[in-house]
Amino acid sequence: MKKISIIGSGNVAHHLIKKTSELTDAKLHQVFARNINSLKSLQLPSYVFCEHISNLDVADLYIIAVNDAAIAEVSEQLHFENRLVVHTSGTVSLREIDAKNRRGVFYPLQTFSKEKTVNFEHVPLCLETEHAEDYALLETIAKMYSTAVYPISEKQRQSLHVAAVFANNFTNHMYAIAEDICSENQVPFAVLQPLIEETAEKIKTMHAVDAQTGPAKRKDEKTVQKHIDFIQDTALQSLYKNITQSIQNYHVKKF
Amino acid sequence: MKKISIIGSGNVAHHLIKKTSELTDAKLHQVFARNINSLKSLQLPSYVFCEHISNLDVADLYIIAVNDAAIAEVSEQLHFENRLVVHTSGTVSLREIDAKNRRGVFYPLQTFSKEKTVNFEHVPLCLETEHAEDYALLETIAKMYSTAVYPISEKQRQSLHVAAVFANNFTNHMYAIAEDICSENQVPFAVLQPLIEETAEKIKTMHAVDAQTGPAKRKDEKTVQKHIDFIQDTALQSLYKNITQSIQNYHVKKF
Repeated sequence: MKKISIIGSGNVAHHLIKKTSELTDAKLHQVFARNINSLKSLQLPSYVFCEHISNLDVADLYIIAVNDAAIAEVSEQLHFENRLVVHTSGTVSLREIDAKNRRGVFYPLQTFSKEKTVNFEHVPLCLETEHAEDYALLETIAKMYSTAVYPISEKQRQSLHVAAVFANNFTNHMYAIAEDICSENQVPFAVLQPLIEETAEKIKTMHAVDAQTGPAKRKDEKTVQKHIDFIQDTALQSLYKNITQSIQNYHVKKF
Repeated sequence: MKKISIIGSGNVAHHLIKKTSELTDAKLHQVFARNINSLKSLQLPSYVFCEHISNLDVADLYIIAVNDAAIAEVSEQLHFENRLVVHTSGTVSLREIDAKNRRGVFYPLQTFSKEKTVNFEHVPLCLETEHAEDYALLETIAKMYSTAVYPISEKQRQSLHVAAVFANNFTNHMYAIAEDICSENQVPFAVLQPLIEETAEKIKTMHAVDAQTGPAKRKDEKTVQKHIDFIQDTALQSLYKNITQSIQNYHVKKF
């Protein structure tokens, strides 16, 4: 039975701790968080919580699930050496973890909100280890969490993080604008839900660039202008124009 | 048994004709299209096709599913009067249909590609009629196609069309960029699929504005800068900045 200890109390930590506590082939050994209150809803037995980071004892894996900016500092505070310590960041190099331990990355590529349960089984886990011989252990543990485990290099992970901003953050912002437009016009946002689902579904079988439709794509300037007039707000008009232009000038990019 | 005749051969016409031919309480009476070849894959009996628009005979409903720009002209060419004629556009007023007939709108709010089957049952149908007494018939017929039928005014429909551009066209463009980033870095796009699904799923239970996460939202300028450096292409950098700014300055808009 592998012992897993987790540091942090944010969205990612919250979901990781919950899932770890439910594993059958590994156990949630200890949790350290500055803000333990925010983990209360998980109803963990109090003995898993460390009062101080120096109370973390021997485990097979330590997961640092804190803000990117705090990873280096937290890893320095660990009082042990030569154990497997990973962070969960999409952007930070594993070299930001203090070199006294064996370093790695355990990046769950999903959007986490405390309010919403996530089916961890389908969360892609992107793994990287400093030493090749640690990969097998990290992979064995990762497969207890998810069926979607990938070896991902630092450069690949950074590219995925940028891609995820487009596919998730920016997409969600498009939804937010659409929701406001509906709400201002007394149209239930539910009317758009099937379209949103189909848009996400379509790209499983088609390249997104081939699935592109709409006034921008077909250079229907009359409709584009109607929409810009409709929007009124100048910042949003400029956003509409910029994305329209990007669709019209788009060719496959080199990154 | 209601008789439905359809004019057009584009993506919307294609899916409407297919679905109409499968209805049990109504029948696909006739089809007129300038480009009949593009409907070949539907394998309809040849007698449903009109050689000329003047061969359209009596039906309960005529659906004009052609380009926005062609609606007025096609409706003028109809040689009959006082029958129910609707178009399928999200932006065009029903008054663009020639006034000799009883006019309406039958706007299926979904993204259609010929290559991909659509489950029509969940396609929202936004209805409008010039005369209140025609609404019941149009609604009865619409409910044969879909369980999601809404009375939607012209202003509401126009707002929905703008909202749909954000929720579908612009979102799909975000996917296209994400897919390219993955492909350039030899990462399977499938890694992002669960994130894309969860993003679309989340807004069923949360307001999109509350579901917003990521570097833009948390004003993580360091990560934003990393991403901009990563992107390199100046047009795409400007798009990234513009959407980031829009997320940061966003407050609920008035339309």
